[in-house]
Parts: sequence; structure tokens; C-alpha cells
Amino acid sequence: MSTPTIETSKETLAEYCQRLASDAAQAARQLRSVPGTAKNAWLLDSARALRDSSEDILDANREDVRRAPEFGLTSAQIDRLSLNNARIGDIAKSLEQLAAWPDPVGEVIDGSVRPTGLRLQRVRVPLGVVFFVYESRPNVTADAAGICIKSGNAVILRGGKEAHQSSTRIVQILQSTAAAHGIPAQAVQLVETPDREAVGHLLALHQWIDVAIPRGGEGLIRRVVAEATMPVIKHFTGNCHVYVDADADLDMAERLTVNSKCQRMGVCNAAESLLVHADIAQAFLPRIYQALSSHGVELRGDTAVRQIVPECHVATDEDYYAEYLGPTISVKVVRSVEEAIQHINHYGSHHTDAIVTDSVQAADAFLAQVDSAAVMLNASTRFHDGGEFGLGAEIGISTDKFHARGPCGLRELTTYKYVVRGNGQIR
Amino acid sequence: MSTPTIETSKETLAEYCQRLASDAAQAARQLRSVPGTAKNAWLLDSARALRDSSEDILDANREDVRRAPEFGLTSAQIDRLSLNNARIGDIAKSLEQLAAWPDPVGEVIDGSVRPTGLRLQRVRVPLGVVFFVYESRPNVTADAAGICIKSGNAVILRGGKEAHQSSTRIVQILQSTAAAHGIPAQAVQLVETPDREAVGHLLALHQWIDVAIPRGGEGLIRRVVAEATMPVIKHFTGNCHVYVDADADLDMAERLTVNSKCQRMGVCNAAESLLVHADIAQAFLPRIYQALSSHGVELRGDTAVRQIVPECHVATDEDYYAEYLGPTISVKVVRSVEEAIQHINHYGSHHTDAIVTDSVQAADAFLAQVDSAAVMLNASTRFHDGGEFGLGAEIGISTDKFHARGPCGLRELTTYKYVVRGNGQIR
Repeated sequence: MSTPTIETSKETLAEYCQRLASDAAQAARQLRSVPGTAKNAWLLDSARALRDSSEDILDANREDVRRAPEFGLTSAQIDRLSLNNARIGDIAKSLEQLAAWPDPVGEVIDGSVRPTGLRLQRVRVPLGVVFFVYESRPNVTADAAGICIKSGNAVILRGGKEAHQSSTRIVQILQSTAAAHGIPAQAVQLVETPDREAVGHLLALHQWIDVAIPRGGEGLIRRVVAEATMPVIKHFTGNCHVYVDADADLDMAERLTVNSKCQRMGVCNAAESLLVHADIAQAFLPRIYQALSSHGVELRGDTAVRQIVPECHVATDEDYYAEYLGPTISVKVVRSVEEAIQHINHYGSHHTDAIVTDSVQAADAFLAQVDSAAVMLNASTRFHDGGEFGLGAEIGISTDKFHARGPCGLRELTTYKYVVRGNGQIR
Repeated sequence: MSTPTIETSKETLAEYCQRLASDAAQAARQLRSVPGTAKNAWLLDSARALRDSSEDILDANREDVRRAPEFGLTSAQIDRLSLNNARIGDIAKSLEQLAAWPDPVGEVIDGSVRPTGLRLQRVRVPLGVVFFVYESRPNVTADAAGICIKSGNAVILRGGKEAHQSSTRIVQILQSTAAAHGIPAQAVQLVETPDREAVGHLLALHQWIDVAIPRGGEGLIRRVVAEATMPVIKHFTGNCHVYVDADADLDMAERLTVNSKCQRMGVCNAAESLLVHADIAQAFLPRIYQALSSHGVELRGDTAVRQIVPECHVATDEDYYAEYLGPTISVKVVRSVEEAIQHINHYGSHHTDAIVTDSVQAADAFLAQVDSAAVMLNASTRFHDGGEFGLGAEIGISTDKFHARGPCGLRELTTYKYVVRGNGQIR
């Protein structure tokens, strides 16, 4: 029922990883015929079991928190690691909300009857096995398991060592509720060993693992991309822009810029760069300087910006590439919407970019030409989110173009197959 | 206008490849705003120009054919390499047919108005730059260029050296018609040098190239997969199965097996393996042995098969993995549809697998559980094809699950972006 233990005397790390992955592949095959009602019942049962076991989980979490200083965690990181009854309730609630979503598996995406009489359907099916590598917070363990199982995938979880005790207890609970609903316990497995080499071993096993999803710092993502032999859904940096056009309503521009930058600074859809059209730079830059400064944000601008706001710091080329995730923003004056588009496509990270304008022509050009997962007209970049988009829970926001772009939820963890029904047709 | 020439004195191979890829990326950016009418007019103009230049193309092709023995081509390969007026007409006609297809770019896949009033659309957009690596036939050069441009992508073509003169001339013609329609000539580029290292250099340039598509032998595909730093759409082997169930109509089963195997033996959707339920093995095996033998096909069976048809050759485990692409088929007796499913998921290549049965239960289990790009009920495996599926031209058939599965045509060469329109919303 539980994740198999490494028996070092008998089994090497490579063998352990192979067993984990091949067990997951077998579980994925079984999951294909588990109906939606059973998956939902498992989610609800697991939510209940998590609440019922909260004392157990808190014990394990206290052990993680006690060891946190050994791993050099900051107090903010320790706060994110810490669970309490309310947070366990939130984890359980997330699973309950997931149960209420429609099952993506089996959706007929499109279909037709061919002139030959063949009846053709494109049907949504699970990807198979997801290898999810993430850092820190224990709630992600339950969320990821829920999203994967609900979309019919088996998952191998590799969480941060900081949350290992908490995650282990959560996974044991999720496994304990599986069998009653026809879900194999190996559908959710946690990598037991802290050995970093385990990740490398698993990334080599493309015969069993269908996709790797890293979520965490850039170093983690780069490592997974470099070593993975299967496709990777990446969530790279969010260097998001707000472009204030010549035809912008400056009150709206100020409101949207401040919200995009300041509503929550440490997240991927926060603005990191502000582009201002030369025609309104004189009117807009002093007031946005005031507004952002009053939120404690440091502005770094080019020469044109500093001619209008001399107090502004100097921006280097690197500033325009930066994802600060904190109280700094780069600022630049551009002479046209085209220059703004070129700047964003060059320096941006293809995550979320917004234009503020009343001009249909500028809006059309920007929305069509900026090559990002989400492009926004007269709205805060902070809206780029699976929940805000009405897509439900997400396992990350993809900055890739391939397979999944933007919020990566239930639908993005599926693929499709062609189902063709005939009555003896030959070519 | 033409593909840039390597000036060896000034430019290294790596620099040449970088120029090719960065020029393609710039062309892809320009292509985003080329309307469908312009792309279609370019396709029709190019078709006309190919017909008008047929003497030129035939001259270049004669040079390729003259040199073919140097490359060790078989007479069948030389036949496939050879052009004539009719074949050039076919190439032109393919481009004309492509012009008649709807433009995939700009399709609104879905959309909604969020409770915040934000209007959300998921809009189909081009992937960007396609690096297409293929072998031999010169018609593929024009087809691939047409599919890529029509779907809004720039393409870098790396054809086989055997067809280099023909491909060069065809690409020159496709480039010569581009400017009049606002399409940058660098939207279609052919790698000029036969140096195999050029492929390696290009596969490293993920900053400019969005997807690599190898089409050819397994060695080529494995090399591209190993070296690519961008996503790859793979077209691996087609080890396709026909499973004749206990409840099959044996006349239909014979017709479908013979058609799946023999209609065209050298293609990826031809059957390579036949599974027969034990209950009808005695009735079916002798007649299918007769039928396939009369088409010159050698059968290789397991012990159970050879007990019924002693003349049948012995199948090894490797036979069940084999893609023969020729007059051989492996045969096996199974005791249930479940055993057939397990065999196919284990030995197959996830391409195309068919069941012949009158049983709803067997059909449902097979269609749901066989994890292949296309699963067929009572139809020949040979129908797995973009044209037969009504999807138009294809650049290959993907045996991957990720992004594109099955026929890879205009739609599969696109991705999507979220376009969000508001009127000042903040979070």
C-alpha cells in the first residue's frame, strides 16, 4: 500500500527508480479504466482522511519545521512550510473542489463520418505517468496528486527534502484511500530517498514516464530540462510587461501598472518592466514614479526616463531581462507600439504582457504580435492564472509553446487518440 | 531572395547555421501578420511557377539521378527520386489543394466572459520556426514548405543529399514567388551544405527554432532526438496489429488482415503482426495462411500457431517487436482480448492497431485500453492517414503523445495563446 522502501542491501538506487517508474506505468494502465465517479469519490475520501489525520500530519510537519534551520531556510520559507489545522483544511478543500470539475478523460474533442463510412472521433486520454519535481510547500503534494489522478495519470512526486516528513504522511493518506475506489496505490508515489541522483535516474526512464514537470527555481528547471529524456513542461521566468500606449487612459494605466507590479510581488505574473510611449511619457512618468515609489518599488530607467524623472535609477541591459520577484521595476520609453512589441519579444519571457490603450489599432497589433502565453488589453497581468481563467486547479503555468501554454491544468495533462469505427472498410 | 551561401573564408559552419536560424525566426515574426489570402495566393503562384519551371527542375533532377549511384541508391530509391512532368504536376497540385484549406491561424478554439468582465479567448497561433529533416524524395520539399507557411511557420529544410539539386531548384522557385505576397524569402530556407554537422548545429539553436521534425529512417530520428534542444515531433516505427477476436466475422477478418498487410507493404500503417483469439484459431489460421501466402507474405508464428499451421515459420520475441515494412508478418494466438491488449501495449509502437469483432464488450475494451495514436474497429489499419481522416496534408504521423498524436498537419503545427480583453480590471 505504501511507497516501496529502498532496501539498500538488495536494491541499488537505479533499480529502486526503475521499480518506481515501472510500477507507475502499470498503475497508469489500470487508471485508464477507472471511471470519473471513482476518481471523485477518492478525492472526497482523501479530503476527509486528511482532515481526520491532521494531528498525524502536524506531527510530521513539526519534525520538518524542527529540521528547517539545518537546510538553511529563511523565516519566510519556514512560514510557507508550516502547516496548521486551517492550512490542512485548505488542502482538503482543494481536493473537494477538484472532485467537482468535469472529468477531462473521454471528452470527444471532435469527430466526423468519413465518405468511406468510417466514424472518426478524437478522444481525450491521459498522458500516462507524470514525474513532478517541486520545491518546498507540502500543500503542493496533495494538489499535484489530485490533479494527476483526476486527469487519469499516475504521478511520481519528488518534493523538497525540507517538507519530506509532511509529504510522506500526506502521500500515505492518499494511498490508503485508493484501493477502495479501484485506484492502484502506485498511482501516487513519493520518491523516498533524498539522494539527488534519484532525479537523474528517473529522468532517464522515458519508457515509463511520459512527461516531467519541474516547479521551482531556475536551477531546478534547467537541470530537469538538461537531463530529461521525456518531454518537459517548463515554467520558466515571468518577465511580464505593462506597455502604456500613447492613447492610454492614464488613470487606468496607473491603476493597472500598480496592480500588476504590487498586488503580489513574488509571483510569476507580476509585472517586472514598464514601457511608456514617448508621447505621454512627460505626463505619465512622474505620476507612476510617485505611485510605485509609495509602494516601496525602485524604478530603473533608460536615459529618456531619467530626463523626465532624474531621481530614477539607471537601468542596464540586464535589468530589461530581469525577473525581480520583488520591489524593483525596469522602465523604458518607446516611440511606437511596434518598438514595444519588439522589446517584449526580445527581452520578455513569453509569459504575460499587457497593453493599456484606447486605440483599436494599437491593441490589435499588440495582441497579435506579442508572442506570449497570455496577452492582455486594459487588464492587470495578475489575471493570468488557471483559477481566474476559469480553468480550475493548475500544476503550473507553462512558458513553453509546445503541448501546453499558460495555465497547465486537467486538460493539459491529457493527450488524445483517434478512435475509428467501421464495418469492414478496406483501402 | 535565395538562401544565403556559406562564404567559407568569412563564416564558419556554426555561424552559417546561426544566421539561417535567426533569419528564420525574424521571418516567422513577419509571417504572423501575413493574412490567409496572401499565403493562399503564394501557394497558387508557386504551383504555377513550379509548372512553368519544370524544364529547370527536370535538369536539376537529372543531375541528382546521375549522381545517385555514387550515394549507393537502389533502383527503387532512384525511381522515387526521379521527377517527370506528371510528378511536378502532382507537386504543384498539392500546393493548390493546400490553398483550399481553411487557415488554422487565428481560430478561436474556445472563449468565455469571466465574472470579472474579462473577455477570454484561446486563439490558435503558429509555433514559429520548424526545422524539418528528411530523406530523399523531392516532392517532400515543396509539401513541407507549403504546410509550414500555410500554418504561419518559417521552415528550415534539410533534405537528403541525394535530392539536393532538385530541392535547391524547388526552394528557389518557392522563394521567388514570396515577396509579391508579403512573405519573407527567409520563411523557406534550405540548408545548403551537405555537411552532417550542420544538423547538430541547428539542433542546438532552441532560441530560434521551436520544433524539430525528423522524417526518415530510425537512425535519423534517433540522432535528432538525441541532439535536439527543442521539442521534437517524432514519427517512429509503425508496428501495427490486427487482432481477430473470438466474435469476429472471419470473412471480414480475412479481408481486413490482407488489406492491412498487403495493400502497401512499405508504409508505416501497414500491419506487421496478427493476433488471433484461441477460440477461432483453428478456423481462421489456415485460411489467413493461404490468403497471405498467396500475396507472397511469410508468416512467423508461436507454438500455438504452428500446431494449427505447421508450415508457418517460427517467430522469435524480436519478431513481435519488428516493423518489417515488407512481406513478413508475425502471428500469435491469444486467449482473450485482454491478452491482445497487453501484447499490443508491450510490443507495439503506439501507431495503429485494429480489432475485428462483433462484440461490443471486446470492442470497447480494445478501443479504450490500447494506447495507440489510432485504434480501429472493423477497419483496415491503412486508413490511419491525414487524407483519409479528412485532415488535409500532413508532415508526418506522430507516434508521440505530446502536442501532436497521429497525423501531423496544419493544426498540429500551431499552438495557442490566451487573449484577454478588459476595461481596467485589477485584482
